Amino acid sequence: MSIFAARALAAPDSPSAAVDVFIGTGGDGHCHPGATRPFGMVQLGPDTAHRSHRESYPWCAGYRYEDESILGFSHTHFSGTGHGDLGDVLLMPFTGATRLEPGYPERAMSGYRSRFSHELERGEPGYYAVRLLDHEIDVELTASERVGLHRYHYGSGIAGKLLLDLRTSLYDHKDKNQWARLRLRGDRLVTGMRQTRGWAPGRQLHFAIEFSQPLLRSELHNTEDGIAYRGFRTPGRAPQDKRVLEGTKLLGVFEFGAELPQGQLLVKVAISTVSEDQAIANLAEMPGWDFDAERRAAAAAWDEALGVLEIEADEAMRRNLYTAQYHALQAPSLFMDLDGQYRGPDNQVHRAEGFRYHSTFSLWDTYRALHPWLLLCQSEQRNSDFIQSLLVSQAHSPHGILPVWQFHGLETWCMIGYHALPVIADAWLKGVRGFDPQRALQAMRASAEYAPYGGIGDYLQYGYVPFDLEGEGASKTLEYSFDDWTLARMAESLGEAETAATYYRRAQSFRHLLDPQTGFVRGKSSAGEFRLPFDPTAAGYGSDYTEGSAWQYSWYVPHDGAALVANLGGDAGLVKRLDEIFEAETNAKMYSHMEDIAGLIGHYAHGNEPSHHIAYLYAFAGAPWKTQARLAQIVPSQYKNGAAGLAGNDDLGQMSAWLLFSALGFYPVAPGSNEYVIGRPFVRAARLRLPNGRVFSVRAENYAEENVYVGRVTLNGREHHSSVLAHEALAAGAELVFHMQAEPNKDWGAAPAQRPYTQTPYR
Amino acid sequence: MSIFAARALAAPDSPSAAVDVFIGTGGDGHCHPGATRPFGMVQLGPDTAHRSHRESYPWCAGYRYEDESILGFSHTHFSGTGHGDLGDVLLMPFTGATRLEPGYPERAMSGYRSRFSHELERGEPGYYAVRLLDHEIDVELTASERVGLHRYHYGSGIAGKLLLDLRTSLYDHKDKNQWARLRLRGDRLVTGMRQTRGWAPGRQLHFAIEFSQPLLRSELHNTEDGIAYRGFRTPGRAPQDKRVLEGTKLLGVFEFGAELPQGQLLVKVAISTVSEDQAIANLAEMPGWDFDAERRAAAAAWDEALGVLEIEADEAMRRNLYTAQYHALQAPSLFMDLDGQYRGPDNQVHRAEGFRYHSTFSLWDTYRALHPWLLLCQSEQRNSDFIQSLLVSQAHSPHGILPVWQFHGLETWCMIGYHALPVIADAWLKGVRGFDPQRALQAMRASAEYAPYGGIGDYLQYGYVPFDLEGEGASKTLEYSFDDWTLARMAESLGEAETAATYYRRAQSFRHLLDPQTGFVRGKSSAGEFRLPFDPTAAGYGSDYTEGSAWQYSWYVPHDGAALVANLGGDAGLVKRLDEIFEAETNAKMYSHMEDIAGLIGHYAHGNEPSHHIAYLYAFAGAPWKTQARLAQIVPSQYKNGAAGLAGNDDLGQMSAWLLFSALGFYPVAPGSNEYVIGRPFVRAARLRLPNGRVFSVRAENYAEENVYVGRVTLNGREHHSSVLAHEALAAGAELVFHMQAEPNKDWGAAPAQRPYTQTPYR
Repeated sequence: MSIFAARALAAPDSPSAAVDVFIGTGGDGHCHPGATRPFGMVQLGPDTAHRSHRESYPWCAGYRYEDESILGFSHTHFSGTGHGDLGDVLLMPFTGATRLEPGYPERAMSGYRSRFSHELERGEPGYYAVRLLDHEIDVELTASERVGLHRYHYGSGIAGKLLLDLRTSLYDHKDKNQWARLRLRGDRLVTGMRQTRGWAPGRQLHFAIEFSQPLLRSELHNTEDGIAYRGFRTPGRAPQDKRVLEGTKLLGVFEFGAELPQGQLLVKVAISTVSEDQAIANLAEMPGWDFDAERRAAAAAWDEALGVLEIEADEAMRRNLYTAQYHALQAPSLFMDLDGQYRGPDNQVHRAEGFRYHSTFSLWDTYRALHPWLLLCQSEQRNSDFIQSLLVSQAHSPHGILPVWQFHGLETWCMIGYHALPVIADAWLKGVRGFDPQRALQAMRASAEYAPYGGIGDYLQYGYVPFDLEGEGASKTLEYSFDDWTLARMAESLGEAETAATYYRRAQSFRHLLDPQTGFVRGKSSAGEFRLPFDPTAAGYGSDYTEGSAWQYSWYVPHDGAALVANLGGDAGLVKRLDEIFEAETNAKMYSHMEDIAGLIGHYAHGNEPSHHIAYLYAFAGAPWKTQARLAQIVPSQYKNGAAGLAGNDDLGQMSAWLLFSALGFYPVAPGSNEYVIGRPFVRAARLRLPNGRVFSVRAENYAEENVYVGRVTLNGREHHSSVLAHEALAAGAELVFHMQAEPNKDWGAAPAQRPYTQTPYR
Repeated sequence: MSIFAARALAAPDSPSAAVDVFIGTGGDGHCHPGATRPFGMVQLGPDTAHRSHRESYPWCAGYRYEDESILGFSHTHFSGTGHGDLGDVLLMPFTGATRLEPGYPERAMSGYRSRFSHELERGEPGYYAVRLLDHEIDVELTASERVGLHRYHYGSGIAGKLLLDLRTSLYDHKDKNQWARLRLRGDRLVTGMRQTRGWAPGRQLHFAIEFSQPLLRSELHNTEDGIAYRGFRTPGRAPQDKRVLEGTKLLGVFEFGAELPQGQLLVKVAISTVSEDQAIANLAEMPGWDFDAERRAAAAAWDEALGVLEIEADEAMRRNLYTAQYHALQAPSLFMDLDGQYRGPDNQVHRAEGFRYHSTFSLWDTYRALHPWLLLCQSEQRNSDFIQSLLVSQAHSPHGILPVWQFHGLETWCMIGYHALPVIADAWLKGVRGFDPQRALQAMRASAEYAPYGGIGDYLQYGYVPFDLEGEGASKTLEYSFDDWTLARMAESLGEAETAATYYRRAQSFRHLLDPQTGFVRGKSSAGEFRLPFDPTAAGYGSDYTEGSAWQYSWYVPHDGAALVANLGGDAGLVKRLDEIFEAETNAKMYSHMEDIAGLIGHYAHGNEPSHHIAYLYAFAGAPWKTQARLAQIVPSQYKNGAAGLAGNDDLGQMSAWLLFSALGFYPVAPGSNEYVIGRPFVRAARLRLPNGRVFSVRAENYAEENVYVGRVTLNGREHHSSVLAHEALAAGAELVFHMQAEPNKDWGAAPAQRPYTQTPYR
């Protein structure tokens, strides 16, 4: 029976079965459908990217649902980033003649690429299968945390062959592959490494490939030309069997003959950032060769991780939510070997003691909702692992600061801010332990006071980041202010009154850039002048805003809504401005030069993070009914079933976490506040099993599409008049019930005392 | 007082004082005058090479005595190789304006290079000093095993500056620098690494640089252009202080201000093949900042190592011999960190347990006389370290074979043969222990039976290496035969009769290539035909001979002199042919296309190893008086005082070891035989303190230039009629006395029983 016709492994009502791993793999989602474990190092799946793609951006994840041919199956991917790398250890099974070049998607059999069809393709959490139409090979993939497992169905009597291409990479460019090594060890093991200068220059990825059947024949190739010096690796000096090959453009061809049992070959690939020996050691994670058992284990891990959330909702929403949860549980991912060794931001090898080192911190995105969400659905140990990983990264940082955008242990300096601070503070304030808070506070201060980074020196001198001294000064000032506030919150909780006072003061820095004339936050020069002329739609790298315009960024004061209200002349002013944002006549062209600004509703760009809290700001002006209405606009338009269902890059779970929170009816506008702003639910009911074992449940009475508004709310059966949900109430286990209706209840949450922290700077 | 006018540290009659570190640094010697310890990892000294030198060969060692300007001071060098690499971590102190490019030797101040003069230059074992004329800085250098120590005399009130250039390298070429990293750690420590693709591709060299005074200012530069992708390392994203920089063309500029105590700066540099952290840890080897104490310690280490040999000879010969001993005690050099970690031939990190890992094995050269010499003058522990280093290298070899030409733990595949076998067998048979001989035998067999390397598969199939299947087949067949014989010897001593028999048979393989018509050893095709036309002067890469011609290579059957005698029609035939070799009318042009064929006397090329045993072959024909006469020709013409004193590359001590043996009156023609062939002495007397504590002494009665010949020989006072000296007799402690005279004694050593193993294949 075809593997494609087979019944899904997961029970039809299991959480796994509700996931569509292809959501977000087309359009702008940049998700990858490959097989992975929750927070696994390996994400093994198809790459459809072509090396000649001039624009790498759409192929950040390696795979695009719109493509018609597969290059091969590689072991590392980002899911949902706005920038690319990885695609390491690309394997492609084939039959017949050996082709060392991938060829062209539009010309079948012009290389080792193969056409495929979505009819003969299948993806589930922890499993991916596809038929390579040109080679007539069915491929199945699954993974443990550090090991990818392949099963190739060549067919009986067919000579099975396998190509390893170490030249290909995501976000490819001519100098990217700095060095690679391939080594045959006996007839069942191949190891190697690749060093690349991509998003994280000098990145080493080591691997060990084990075959279920002995190699009959192998070839190692180096397609480099113009090598200035080849040493004594000429015929007659170096061994002629090429058991080891080094260079920048390596391939391996492995042949297994026509006697494969059941016409199948299984291949395991373990990875390590440390060394080939460590990659070999990591193979121990998957000792057997039972593909189906590994697939079941992966599915079970997903069912367990996904199953903490029970959802009663429309089928499409249920699918979106479990897929969002699937996306939310991929990063920060494990990045250490079985024995705890890992490569840190100093590119040196360290050993994790008492925790599991994780990397892939897309912090500018994920501090907003992903990390707050993971605090609700992942164990304290996992959340503590994240914090401890951040802290050892700071200890090993050449600059002595916390990660900004880190993967495989290495810093990329992508995006702005020092957003490890809200992640740490939020975790600490919500009760995550297992790390030394004084040490954490020290690391946070080291980051917030490191003058050479991102204009912090100017920020401290002027109170803001002047646009004539540093790019993106408005965005930096806003986000630094918020990050400072989270440090103050943590310092206060530790009784560090002086530090708290200092940082509460710093948290008000954004006020320098509030322009009461226009109501926007504007770039200001070191001479104290706002930038002129002022165009609130101006956006661009190096402008005053980061991947955004004044229309999108001016409202990023999550810790001091009162200041926003005041700057806009009162509640009505904020509501009016928010309405203008959503209702402006904009067109795709306005922001088309900024690829990350996507998912537009007026100026509101749900496809990028600076907008994510905006709909919830109505609550600060006492108009939560408007939040409810905006959410009814946003949710259905920005999250759809289907490959192109996501309005923008998933950003390693941030887009997904936004949906998960919003669908449950609340959102962490200000991580570190221990409060959520209540919106409205998009489920009939949901139960979330919290890491402390308690259950938080949400129910929507009178749930229907036309019932956009919340009439009243009860918490544990008692009327809840505030648009604020306290984390403590949630964490104690609670039932939040929304009574939905077609007409707005403009009184609910309207009184000043019922709003989020608008009266004074939140403490 | 000028450091150049100061009295030498060493007592005038000390062994160190007798060394001239500049011998062999000019001409074809390729020696380096830098500061090093016996077998030290660091050899710290001047590089005069210029990056635009089109021919790198003369600059293999980095320094040429003929040059007039210095590029800087780097920490790794080979002494006497015929190929180049290294020159890592080049430091150049300077004052005044910063110049990032070295400039041109012929144009003063065109860059950071400085002119120098030999009048203001000084070298001693463990110490080097020079005045940088253009910068008016005196530089002193010394070293421990893993740490180089610099002392710069900028002068009082002068702002001291220091340039670090990670771009320069020996045997430079455009793609050589694959990656480098520089990192400031506080104000006294800089670490980094460089990865190069040179003689050993993918080589990593990590370092830690510590300053005696705090940095006032520093700059890190990357002069790469045309970088395809720079990531987010643009202004405004990455920190602006550049505490860490990565790239392929890095420099650092370090400024210390004008307040340096006594106008001096000291700099320590530790290296490691493992990691920057390990380099930092290696700094612990030299905890203090007392330059003079470190210099004294280095001198003491040399005096101890050199002092095992006491020499009474002409001043020039004494200088040559102590310099030869100095050269002989540099490689194989230590290549592990303080904690035993090292990088092996698999480019993975290992830890040496119970021995000290050494690398830089130039085995094709050094198995002949250097290793036999080190067995006589270095501790059993050191010799056992060599063997154990070879054995772990085999264990970690991707091919499972012993090193061929290894440095910094990595294989280069330079030259031919599996000459780790004679090194191991000779050591074992002469009593070196501390390793498992069965394990060693297994490693030796693995190397000798590895078909893919150097035509071994063909060698086993045909009994020789056919020229139509593999280059340099005649040389390979000859050397494999000898290597096989050493394996047989070791197997026999272990009671492995079957292996011994097999390898004694293999040791006769050379007979396939003996041509009784011409008396030469000739290339033979797989069809069994000698190569036609036959030109015994033909030499070239890929020809039948390795860096030689039939005239030079045909006599390499050290283990079976009888076969040579027979092929040449008897004793007279061999003597006649040997005379033809030395007396042929040759000219430099004949071999000028092969840079290693140097030091010609007829066809005899003392500058390269295949000739090294030839003068001793007269003894096999019962004519040792002719050996005596030839040595009197060779020694004065090939070894002279002065920078250009060596006739060819020192080859990491092999040329020097030849002189040391020959000057003492004997030579290890066949390592593994435990016998030496007696020549004639070039000293009045010598005492060698053996590692077992006994003393072997040599005395020459009637020593005078005109007394070329040996009249009689006594061993421990008894007449010694044989031209063979048994190792056992030497090792027991003995006195060998030569009675020199002007006329040959043609009877001494003439009788068949008095000759080296000519009657039967030696067992």
